Amino acid sequence: MKVLMISANNFEDSELLVPYYRLKEENIEVDIASMKKGIISGKHKYEINANKELNEINPSDYKALILPGGKAPEKIRHEEKAQEIAKAFFKDNKLVAAICHGPQILITANLMKGKHATSYKSVADELKKAEAFYEDKEVVIDGNLITSRSPEDLPAFMREIMKHLKNN
Amino acid sequence: MKVLMISANNFEDSELLVPYYRLKEENIEVDIASMKKGIISGKHKYEINANKELNEINPSDYKALILPGGKAPEKIRHEEKAQEIAKAFFKDNKLVAAICHGPQILITANLMKGKHATSYKSVADELKKAEAFYEDKEVVIDGNLITSRSPEDLPAFMREIMKHLKNN
Repeated sequence: MKVLMISANNFEDSELLVPYYRLKEENIEVDIASMKKGIISGKHKYEINANKELNEINPSDYKALILPGGKAPEKIRHEEKAQEIAKAFFKDNKLVAAICHGPQILITANLMKGKHATSYKSVADELKKAEAFYEDKEVVIDGNLITSRSPEDLPAFMREIMKHLKNN
Repeated sequence: MKVLMISANNFEDSELLVPYYRLKEENIEVDIASMKKGIISGKHKYEINANKELNEINPSDYKALILPGGKAPEKIRHEEKAQEIAKAFFKDNKLVAAICHGPQILITANLMKGKHATSYKSVADELKKAEAFYEDKEVVIDGNLITSRSPEDLPAFMREIMKHLKNN
């Protein structure tokens, strides 16, 4: 089983590292894709290697997509390839989990209409404009989509992600 | 089930946050004890509430003790109450898991003699002087004691901690 994470510089460190280490605890292979390969650094100055370039990603290689927050999604959302990848996961009904500002990528990819979801509070208005049903909860599950608000929600976010990966 | 973590200012952020969130994912209650109650901040500027003071800890309330690294253990190791707590966990053969500089607390408490263990590389000489058998591995298990070297080892560290908690 392989899981894809998409991020870029100024990621929210714990929202990338906690899922990344959690999946590795389960011996799940994780690829981190960004605009280009190489080290990306977080708001809190943690560094991690983006081992894939967005353009080389084949969504069918992966079981799930995780989108951490921070300031990274604001850049990634304008990458057509990132939008295409997100659409492919939705089309195949594969798990897409986004936290904090992560849902911004899904908004720009026009995937949120009619979906129940949450996000960092400053993204709530955008979600509503995209005709999603915004809920102020630690985790919201709508079919293949799992969303959370902020680092404090990571336990609930990871609990639902792991449950989904084990049951699907 | 309750788990105790002991830390202080300048903790290694991921070594505190990853276990903390992981245990909460399992709905395990976690207390964070420090020299005094209140917010402590990490090397990477994450903040977390130390909800307990060392002096009010009764080790028998807890199933396991986790000692994150960073610069915090260098201060904590000189707290007699922290040494007493660590000794109580060893005496009752309860899980003690230490990562990075975390084992320094166990060295000062004279608990490492004859134990197989690892640590951050700069702590290796101290461990050897304390007559521990130092191993340069991502995780070393010796009875109730689980040790790891650094943040990159967190997946193996948490895998063994969770296994121990489930099987004991």
